[in-house]
Amino acid sequence: MAGNTIGDIFRVTTFGESHGAGLGCIIDGCPPGLEVDEALIQIELDKRKPGTSRFTTQRREADEVKIFSGVFEGKTTGTPIGLLIENTDQRSKDYSEIKDKFRPGHADYTYLHKHGIRDYRGGGRSSARETAMRVAAGAVAQAWLKTKGISIIGYMSQLGPIAINSVDESQIRENDFFCPDASTVSEWDQYMRDLKKAGDSVGAKITVVAKGMPVGLGEPVFDRLDADVAKSLMSINAVKGVEIGDGFDVVAQKGSEHRDELTPTGFAANHSGGVLGGISTGQDLVAHIALKPTSSISVPGKTIDVHGQPQDVITKGRHDPCVGIRAVPIAEAMLALTIMDHYLRHRAQNADVVVNTPVIPASN
Amino acid sequence: MAGNTIGDIFRVTTFGESHGAGLGCIIDGCPPGLEVDEALIQIELDKRKPGTSRFTTQRREADEVKIFSGVFEGKTTGTPIGLLIENTDQRSKDYSEIKDKFRPGHADYTYLHKHGIRDYRGGGRSSARETAMRVAAGAVAQAWLKTKGISIIGYMSQLGPIAINSVDESQIRENDFFCPDASTVSEWDQYMRDLKKAGDSVGAKITVVAKGMPVGLGEPVFDRLDADVAKSLMSINAVKGVEIGDGFDVVAQKGSEHRDELTPTGFAANHSGGVLGGISTGQDLVAHIALKPTSSISVPGKTIDVHGQPQDVITKGRHDPCVGIRAVPIAEAMLALTIMDHYLRHRAQNADVVVNTPVIPASN
Amino acid sequence: MAGNTIGDIFRVTTFGESHGAGLGCIIDGCPPGLEVDEALIQIELDKRKPGTSRFTTQRREADEVKIFSGVFEGKTTGTPIGLLIENTDQRSKDYSEIKDKFRPGHADYTYLHKHGIRDYRGGGRSSARETAMRVAAGAVAQAWLKTKGISIIGYMSQLGPIAINSVDESQIRENDFFCPDASTVSEWDQYMRDLKKAGDSVGAKITVVAKGMPVGLGEPVFDRLDADVAKSLMSINAVKGVEIGDGFDVVAQKGSEHRDELTPTGFAANHSGGVLGGISTGQDLVAHIALKPTSSISVPGKTIDVHGQPQDVITKGRHDPCVGIRAVPIAEAMLALTIMDHYLRHRAQNADVVVNTPVIPASN
Amino acid sequence: MAGNTIGDIFRVTTFGESHGAGLGCIIDGCPPGLEVDEALIQIELDKRKPGTSRFTTQRREADEVKIFSGVFEGKTTGTPIGLLIENTDQRSKDYSEIKDKFRPGHADYTYLHKHGIRDYRGGGRSSARETAMRVAAGAVAQAWLKTKGISIIGYMSQLGPIAINSVDESQIRENDFFCPDASTVSEWDQYMRDLKKAGDSVGAKITVVAKGMPVGLGEPVFDRLDADVAKSLMSINAVKGVEIGDGFDVVAQKGSEHRDELTPTGFAANHSGGVLGGISTGQDLVAHIALKPTSSISVPGKTIDVHGQPQDVITKGRHDPCVGIRAVPIAEAMLALTIMDHYLRHRAQNADVVVNTPVIPASN
Repeated sequence: MAGNTIGDIFRVTTFGESHGAGLGCIIDGCPPGLEVDEALIQIELDKRKPGTSRFTTQRREADEVKIFSGVFEGKTTGTPIGLLIENTDQRSKDYSEIKDKFRPGHADYTYLHKHGIRDYRGGGRSSARETAMRVAAGAVAQAWLKTKGISIIGYMSQLGPIAINSVDESQIRENDFFCPDASTVSEWDQYMRDLKKAGDSVGAKITVVAKGMPVGLGEPVFDRLDADVAKSLMSINAVKGVEIGDGFDVVAQKGSEHRDELTPTGFAANHSGGVLGGISTGQDLVAHIALKPTSSISVPGKTIDVHGQPQDVITKGRHDPCVGIRAVPIAEAMLALTIMDHYLRHRAQNADVVVNTPVIPASN
Repeated sequence: MAGNTIGDIFRVTTFGESHGAGLGCIIDGCPPGLEVDEALIQIELDKRKPGTSRFTTQRREADEVKIFSGVFEGKTTGTPIGLLIENTDQRSKDYSEIKDKFRPGHADYTYLHKHGIRDYRGGGRSSARETAMRVAAGAVAQAWLKTKGISIIGYMSQLGPIAINSVDESQIRENDFFCPDASTVSEWDQYMRDLKKAGDSVGAKITVVAKGMPVGLGEPVFDRLDADVAKSLMSINAVKGVEIGDGFDVVAQKGSEHRDELTPTGFAANHSGGVLGGISTGQDLVAHIALKPTSSISVPGKTIDVHGQPQDVITKGRHDPCVGIRAVPIAEAMLALTIMDHYLRHRAQNADVVVNTPVIPASN
Repeated sequence: MAGNTIGDIFRVTTFGESHGAGLGCIIDGCPPGLEVDEALIQIELDKRKPGTSRFTTQRREADEVKIFSGVFEGKTTGTPIGLLIENTDQRSKDYSEIKDKFRPGHADYTYLHKHGIRDYRGGGRSSARETAMRVAAGAVAQAWLKTKGISIIGYMSQLGPIAINSVDESQIRENDFFCPDASTVSEWDQYMRDLKKAGDSVGAKITVVAKGMPVGLGEPVFDRLDADVAKSLMSINAVKGVEIGDGFDVVAQKGSEHRDELTPTGFAANHSGGVLGGISTGQDLVAHIALKPTSSISVPGKTIDVHGQPQDVITKGRHDPCVGIRAVPIAEAMLALTIMDHYLRHRAQNADVVVNTPVIPASN
Repeated sequence: MAGNTIGDIFRVTTFGESHGAGLGCIIDGCPPGLEVDEALIQIELDKRKPGTSRFTTQRREADEVKIFSGVFEGKTTGTPIGLLIENTDQRSKDYSEIKDKFRPGHADYTYLHKHGIRDYRGGGRSSARETAMRVAAGAVAQAWLKTKGISIIGYMSQLGPIAINSVDESQIRENDFFCPDASTVSEWDQYMRDLKKAGDSVGAKITVVAKGMPVGLGEPVFDRLDADVAKSLMSINAVKGVEIGDGFDVVAQKGSEHRDELTPTGFAANHSGGVLGGISTGQDLVAHIALKPTSSISVPGKTIDVHGQPQDVITKGRHDPCVGIRAVPIAEAMLALTIMDHYLRHRAQNADVVVNTPVIPASN
């Protein structure tokens, strides 16, 4: 079965190619009575929109979303929500350069072998343009989670070799990088200018956090909350690694150091990233992802064509030197989709549960 | 919905608590005609079996699996395969020590809040004992994959602070650690002895590789092969991070360095770990996971009880100082389950596809 | 989870309300390389289109479908196919008459209680207008099934009290009723004229047949082919009964009469309707459905409003006196969707199967 | 994908062949805190057990169920419930008679062609023995539904040509037929004696009713409550037709006759069978099914063998002359499974819904 659906109860299915007529999605399973309109979705879309930052692709897309169904008089009705963004900037151009050539680091080679046919225009379905619909659906999820006191925040925690030193959430929207550390911004800025000059690209690390989490979300043993977060984040273009809480640092940790002790006023630490046994602890849910450098660079490279013949490749045109930047709102969206789905899943089975033991306050 | 099923076509559902009557699973969707018997499954189970290594829990379980259905005259029939392992070493003991106390780093707190009730005996469903059925099902998947030329191999690549220096697959089964580097074994051995003496535990890093992969497995945009691998590996107890290919190293890489160029004789490198755009490239699929140190240690710790009162906790009994060791066969099993499911998913939609372009040979 | 998706491998998700901005669907999992364009889909849509027959609703909708994705240079690419029909005939009218009133026989009462809110305009999501997208998706399924030699044909076999006497498929498209018996047409015509005069409506029986079926489709024990056909046909608005083969006639049959004997040249009869043990036999798959009379009639009736107060109700406007007529292409579409999904499901698990026993030719 | 799972939230997966080592199932998603033990399940199993009625197969199976997991101190814990029945009456016999022959009316022919291999012993997976696990899981569902005020009752409403004249539920368990009409019992008894003498079998009609239904269950447009009821009932061995409410009688009904008017004290009638627009109305949910006569009869018949050669066939041994009798508890179980699953699905999305309009009392 093809895999363009995410979620079990809050279920999002998307369609659309980079240079096709448009992108769309269906959100099925949204609880009724939620206030949703196009403006609410547009705010999130605009964060991801190409051309917003100086360091992202300069493709110009209005990315105007239209709601076709499922919302009546400003509220969701419980029926499926149909969303559409028509593509406007499909520059009719000559694709002969990439039609028969496999761009290294791209999905040209794999898509053609999978389906025996591919829409080569702008990467087709494998383009990051697809993520617009993730962000649109994520906006609806975030609106609902807010009614439950849950909020999602993301930021770039490392750009190439340069990591942030501190986190001040109020800074995140004050720069071109979703950077939470004002002191790092100018360094990143200079790094990116040099990179653009070199025609190269670089990787990035993104951190996403969910606050106000309830205890109890997650469905062991396979559909653990952390497992589904790992899947949804790894499904973002260019992501090559996912960490929950301390992530790979746990390899060298001792048990006496890692385990988060409990006290009458809360957990003493949050090494676990807010998940124990695949179920949320009520602490902040913390995840980190690694994004590879985009492969569309102007540094020349080697490849082959569909006939197996060696070819040179240089990517021209509008591309992100660091795809990590635009990935912040996408990662927020994916985390929101996953948590919302698990919230609904949890209550399906456990709506009658009353826990008489004290739920300790979250410490982080 | 509860999450005890993994896979869409090759679908495995498990049950069983640590100290219940037994563990079982149903494998639905196994292709017919595959040679399977109890001995084939037992080989994999024995790798994971407690008490096999000096450095794993000394609980004694025969872990003898019985096939109840779906196999006739030595071959799978296409009907569901029912497997059962009866628990034999359920030492009837006094659980009053842990009945009302939340062990830090364990799922006691989260399970109780999720369901309002928990089977506290030995961790109940959250015990690593549950993974026996993953290994059993994985043995069937590995047997089928072998008929398609695909094999899975896993090893420990780092124990606490000590990483391996090289990989020689022939060494993996020659020591207590699934260590592929003979020169590291004695170092790890000494490290573990010291750790046991200190009553502490440590984390580990495991690497799993699938060889002989075909091009084309994976279902973008959400059910990418790497996304489903991330989920299945993150669903293993104690895993806190998953990497595909270069993983978190990509953060500091340049595009010119990361992209794997194509040549008429194959890919020039495998930074991608064998996945591009969520679809297998035909190269080796390479994944790494980080496992946290077990929280069951004899170093005393603080916690609370179900009444919110502060309590001291010391874990007694049989526990793994490094859960990473036994995780190797589990990680192999999970990778096998995921690849097999994607193989069947792929052919459902694409069985008629004939790719006329040359499939280049895998280079790694 | 909300239920706007049908199919597991060939998966169709729809959205859209009667008087919203439009209707759409996503077809995920269509095999690549299939020739599909808007004209192919339009042919089926036009069969169902309101206003086509003198005896169906006179609402005027162009029902022009647009393909947004998943088709490139005239062929499916394996990526999700996005379809959209914009609503054009949304007469802005006064809904105050039905806003607070539950029309008997309609879903007003149940939708409001389910979601606490409803789009009352024209029945909202519960309108038969929703079925346009089933027909659009069904057109794609029928095109694919044709490449495998499978064709679907439907007809009305009874209108109110008057049943057909014989089946001549060449007659079906020659009248306003999808009637396969030329001798019955004038009788039905007169019956419908009288009915319209009386302002009443009547039920109908539809028969759908799949020809050229392979042996082996269907997934016991729950997802039997007949069980999934029953579900997909019962999911059509107004359907109250489903039969496979002899259906309710089997109640009074003897075993010696019902069982279809096998001969070297094929089955001797087809009482089973082409399914044994939930798996297709290779004979024609035959199903019948009962459609209730539409509840939108001009005969006055009693009901209550949202305050529980008694009210009179008379339906004005454009309505079908026999919804069964337009149900023929819908039933064909649903049967096509189900068979195609099962075809792909079957081959996922069984693609390697070679049956050496003789597959006998279908006799019916 | 193979189809041995039913339900989305309350999910039941079964395994087991007629003459294999045993039958089992996993119930995943059962709400925690429900009182369940083996005795509760056994009561329902005993209703279905072979040899209970003089007119069902005389195979002797203890059908003793064992709970392996998911229940702790008498209550469900929210983790998967593993159930097992070991087969005890696997008479080791000579299968050479049926090994290579396709019994007409049975699934021998279709299973072999589907999977290329079949367990021919006693019908393998296609045997009605499989339904034991449906009944076991249904017992758990019925126990939970009872806590919500919902009860399920089934009875035989027609045996061969003889229909009941009235329904007195207190009579159902007072005879060998689940017959609710005392006056019909002797007639059925005589009919069955004659039938047994003739070595033939006959069909039956079963009615199942759910009482105490809430308004709002069902997930249009595809997963309507009636559609899922149709599927679950059609998935029972030998069922060839399903009706909701008036069923096929609606074909000849007028709209003015069929629509159930609403009054301040409730619905005036229940032609709909308790479902409007695919959503429960709060009235009794009423369904009827048609079961074909069993094909295992001692009347000789014609068939072919696996080599395509003509063969005679006579079924010897223990078989039900009317499979409809034992189908009553199975149909009850399937209805319970479907309603419970929809109850949980409904609340996943709509748990926050407060309907301020008056919910009228059910009239039927």
